[in-house]
Amino acid sequence: MNGTECMDRLIAGQRENPGMTLDQAFYVSSRVFERDVERIFRQQWILVGHVSRIAGTGQYFLLEIANESIIVIRQSESVVSAFYNVCRHRGSRICLQPEGRRRMLTCPYHSWTYGLDGALKVARTMPEGFDPSQYALTPCQVRVHHGLIFLYLGSGQAPDFDSLYGETVPYLAQQGIAEAKTAARTDYPNAANWKLVVENFIECYHCAAAHPEYTSVHSEEKLKAFGAGPGSGSQEDVDRFQVVQEAWEQRTRESGNFVGILEPEHDAFAMHQAARFPINENGWLSETIDGTAACNRLMGAFQEHDGGQTAVSFNPFSYVLASNDYAVVFRFTPRDPLNTDIELTWLVHPDAEAEKDYEVAHLTRLWHVTTEQDKTITENNQLGVLSSAYRPGPYSSREARNIRFKHWYLDHLGASPGSSGPGSVACSSSPTG
Amino acid sequence: MNGTECMDRLIAGQRENPGMTLDQAFYVSSRVFERDVERIFRQQWILVGHVSRIAGTGQYFLLEIANESIIVIRQSESVVSAFYNVCRHRGSRICLQPEGRRRMLTCPYHSWTYGLDGALKVARTMPEGFDPSQYALTPCQVRVHHGLIFLYLGSGQAPDFDSLYGETVPYLAQQGIAEAKTAARTDYPNAANWKLVVENFIECYHCAAAHPEYTSVHSEEKLKAFGAGPGSGSQEDVDRFQVVQEAWEQRTRESGNFVGILEPEHDAFAMHQAARFPINENGWLSETIDGTAACNRLMGAFQEHDGGQTAVSFNPFSYVLASNDYAVVFRFTPRDPLNTDIELTWLVHPDAEAEKDYEVAHLTRLWHVTTEQDKTITENNQLGVLSSAYRPGPYSSREARNIRFKHWYLDHLGASPGSSGPGSVACSSSPTG
Amino acid sequence: MNGTECMDRLIAGQRENPGMTLDQAFYVSSRVFERDVERIFRQQWILVGHVSRIAGTGQYFLLEIANESIIVIRQSESVVSAFYNVCRHRGSRICLQPEGRRRMLTCPYHSWTYGLDGALKVARTMPEGFDPSQYALTPCQVRVHHGLIFLYLGSGQAPDFDSLYGETVPYLAQQGIAEAKTAARTDYPNAANWKLVVENFIECYHCAAAHPEYTSVHSEEKLKAFGAGPGSGSQEDVDRFQVVQEAWEQRTRESGNFVGILEPEHDAFAMHQAARFPINENGWLSETIDGTAACNRLMGAFQEHDGGQTAVSFNPFSYVLASNDYAVVFRFTPRDPLNTDIELTWLVHPDAEAEKDYEVAHLTRLWHVTTEQDKTITENNQLGVLSSAYRPGPYSSREARNIRFKHWYLDHLGASPGSSGPGSVACSSSPTG
Repeated sequence: MNGTECMDRLIAGQRENPGMTLDQAFYVSSRVFERDVERIFRQQWILVGHVSRIAGTGQYFLLEIANESIIVIRQSESVVSAFYNVCRHRGSRICLQPEGRRRMLTCPYHSWTYGLDGALKVARTMPEGFDPSQYALTPCQVRVHHGLIFLYLGSGQAPDFDSLYGETVPYLAQQGIAEAKTAARTDYPNAANWKLVVENFIECYHCAAAHPEYTSVHSEEKLKAFGAGPGSGSQEDVDRFQVVQEAWEQRTRESGNFVGILEPEHDAFAMHQAARFPINENGWLSETIDGTAACNRLMGAFQEHDGGQTAVSFNPFSYVLASNDYAVVFRFTPRDPLNTDIELTWLVHPDAEAEKDYEVAHLTRLWHVTTEQDKTITENNQLGVLSSAYRPGPYSSREARNIRFKHWYLDHLGASPGSSGPGSVACSSSPTG
Repeated sequence: MNGTECMDRLIAGQRENPGMTLDQAFYVSSRVFERDVERIFRQQWILVGHVSRIAGTGQYFLLEIANESIIVIRQSESVVSAFYNVCRHRGSRICLQPEGRRRMLTCPYHSWTYGLDGALKVARTMPEGFDPSQYALTPCQVRVHHGLIFLYLGSGQAPDFDSLYGETVPYLAQQGIAEAKTAARTDYPNAANWKLVVENFIECYHCAAAHPEYTSVHSEEKLKAFGAGPGSGSQEDVDRFQVVQEAWEQRTRESGNFVGILEPEHDAFAMHQAARFPINENGWLSETIDGTAACNRLMGAFQEHDGGQTAVSFNPFSYVLASNDYAVVFRFTPRDPLNTDIELTWLVHPDAEAEKDYEVAHLTRLWHVTTEQDKTITENNQLGVLSSAYRPGPYSSREARNIRFKHWYLDHLGASPGSSGPGSVACSSSPTG
Repeated sequence: MNGTECMDRLIAGQRENPGMTLDQAFYVSSRVFERDVERIFRQQWILVGHVSRIAGTGQYFLLEIANESIIVIRQSESVVSAFYNVCRHRGSRICLQPEGRRRMLTCPYHSWTYGLDGALKVARTMPEGFDPSQYALTPCQVRVHHGLIFLYLGSGQAPDFDSLYGETVPYLAQQGIAEAKTAARTDYPNAANWKLVVENFIECYHCAAAHPEYTSVHSEEKLKAFGAGPGSGSQEDVDRFQVVQEAWEQRTRESGNFVGILEPEHDAFAMHQAARFPINENGWLSETIDGTAACNRLMGAFQEHDGGQTAVSFNPFSYVLASNDYAVVFRFTPRDPLNTDIELTWLVHPDAEAEKDYEVAHLTRLWHVTTEQDKTITENNQLGVLSSAYRPGPYSSREARNIRFKHWYLDHLGASPGSSGPGSVACSSSPTG
């Protein structure tokens, strides 16, 4: 049996126990990780940041993904581009700082110089017949959607962005995401497989034990229904919350604001959801540590606090969570089988001024402490899963979104249809092989 | 030729030169290491500590072995249990601190709660049909033998403890090991293959060059005969020491104390030995840096110093060395092909009080400095063995126990009977492959 | 297709685009690295240092190469020897300090003692029949050439030294390398594949962008013709420099000094070159940061500054660059696929005194800063080459020596003649596999 057959059988075996976590190999193996990157991460539109980070022409930031470094750069007032940070001459990195501003992209090694559109402009003393047009920087596909920069890192045709994410427009438009500005940005390196990180983020079954600050912000019923976004609560919990939800929707609609819950319609859409729901009935203004406003300026179309928040999930790697006065963009980037890079970006109204309209410490505190707590949780989860004693365990009724994620994941990982077999087939005798 | 055949030939080849060290692969290769763990380490009863470290119900310590974390916990006054530190829900580690006390074992992730017997007591909001009895913590087999906690980490039937180690009873009983208390405990991470660590521990050919403190404690004849425990000296050296040994045995027997030398009777028993012999004829009371007592209270049945010491070897990973007033428990735990974790635990009389009856610094000094010296030695041994120039070398007549260890090791590693071939067959072109 | 065939096709594919850099695998893969070490590094005479570092009998230094440690030691006034630093008994390292002096080579483990010629002199209590003559230290082949110590680390017959390097004699003799003394020595660990380090060293296309100090020392025409030694400039650039070169040669010859440019005559000699050329027409005395003398004492046969410098390349790992008053010896040692150890040794006249005849800081500054700059460059080159977006790029006309190096490398790596195929065949799906 070759490696591919072995992998296909391993994948097929996961479907036999739909309500159970995945086998160990999916959280530790290098082979599974390579397939994850190839068939899932590189096949998704990945949300990598907000245009306000690169407001001026020539401003760039680097996106570091395992061995890849990608220059995300404002090519002109209206165009954002992305290029692999690899000179076409001898392969050196071109930009060495994590962010900055450039008039041209000049390689520090031999000064090959590229325009902001990636075209090779200067290459000294090249032999006759050298055609510069053959040596432009390698581009990535870019899509800016309401100010959010998405990259497609696959080699083929990217999935159609609008048919996937068109329905997120009213949520993002009302929030004024397109015009927002970056107030803060933090990296959280996480020693856990990306699926453990995602599985932690999409359920709130763990909130009571692990997140005192987060649970003090939201009511218990709210946490059960929407604690980890739309789809995280069981139908029963959502039904129980319905009275509160409907009352809030009624008030909010009357005040002229948009409300809605976008349900996934089919399997492929399982991770693409959007919803608006109240933060906390007790007069909470914003999802902050004490419910007070995060910022004096409301974002987008909001005229006054409506006590609600907006959650949008594009795919397992890309999320936006927003109150009326601020938004957080979450990026989860797989680095290797046992490490994931988390980045949080906080957005506010473009005219809001730091230390006048908002305090960075107050704005960021709730999601900073919650993300640090989740880092500890997922790292201990990873350590346990590395044990030979780890066996798939059963999801609770409050981990419904995890079960959907598992099957979305298996669908995208793509077991060959005919290959079914025992779930315990291992591809390697070594846990991380 | 497949991997297994290759390994079998490699193993068979080691027998061709019985008096020579093993080939390089045995000290550096990942494949050999995996087989070592599977066929040897996980097939032995491993001495992991003393009951006095977890005197109260609910007290635990963690045993960390490569990717495994095991909770060794006092379940009740009379029962010590051990469980893999892996929650049956999503696989998180349950106990995060290296030692502590718990009334229940509650997972920090989703608060699944287990009793001290490992049974699942609380799991919120599980779907209908969920049977908690199917989700107890995964246990390890435990045997407490005279206060020494042994674990069996294999998946099958554990070897019969009493038939293996029954003969150690008089040695341990007279020493009062069952009632002793832990006075000190230290970890010595060692950047060397576990076999290099064991081979260092079971011979005293190196003592003169490497251990000035240890050699100043013992007479030269004693070192040759019993310097690294029973079986470490050549028959000639043991015979030469016979006069001293017999005179001491005679005196000791008359004073009412037990003496004896337990010889291994067959191959499988080669590492399981016990003996009593004198420390040093010149009135030495205890195996300390200057021969003075380590502790004012004698252990077990001893009424007065008899000038002797007791050595018990259970297997290559587990040893006890005892004077009348203190004992040291040695644990050698393989971590990876190039690393071994050494733990030393010093035991004294249960009523002895620190800084009154014993000084920790004096009690621990001889074996602390000797273990640090051996760490340096074995790490330099490993570095040399990694060279392409390493070739098996000949054991001296004072490394008799090493030759027995080599063959015990090969027997347990299990070459297939029919597979014999040249000793230099390598399984991989890379030294650590 | 097995691994060897795969490798052979990969190698054959590189020849299809002679003017392009190598495929990614050659800069990142473990398999290629192992073949590099086996077929290239271990088949060359490697320059490892200068005899003045071990002037007294018994003085030694250790050469650390990946898993190997080699003792380079002065056996007698007239003989330098080299031995693997591995005891023939149990394999321990024998010398633990990076340099020192020994009367005998005594292993710290069991005191096996060897003479400075490697012969085993003392091994206590060995069994009957033990023949010490079978257990001498494992030697390396050594050749001292004008004070430069070369080792051959292959297992077979070393290539004939004199037929390879005989023509370097007049260059080294005039420079007085044989009698020189070591003034300074520095290690520069470099996180880049050895071929990226070599390719950086043998072209000066990058000098303008990367080396302000180095380019301020030399004229632009000189940099183009000889910026990275003989063979680094295009024929056109060498022709353009011819007037300056010939005028300087004429003057120098008249003053009685030797001049010459040793062209490689055939492929196998491509890396073995020697030449003399002027430093800088504007009265520069020495290749220092400001053109002033590095040392008050001229080396070798030089009576007064002739404004020239001497460059000798033995192979990709071994170079000497010399002004009239000092020389630098470069050693590039592959450590693993992504790391190379660089050592620079500065030599001066044997009677020159530090802080009187030369300031170490002034003597070493130019090549210290230039080597640090190249370290940054090559490490960023490596990071870029690790990207999936890296593709072979075209060499400029000022990287002629790189093209010759590429083909010398492929010749020595040895693709089987009949195996040709597409250049993009990868041996492993993982970039570092």
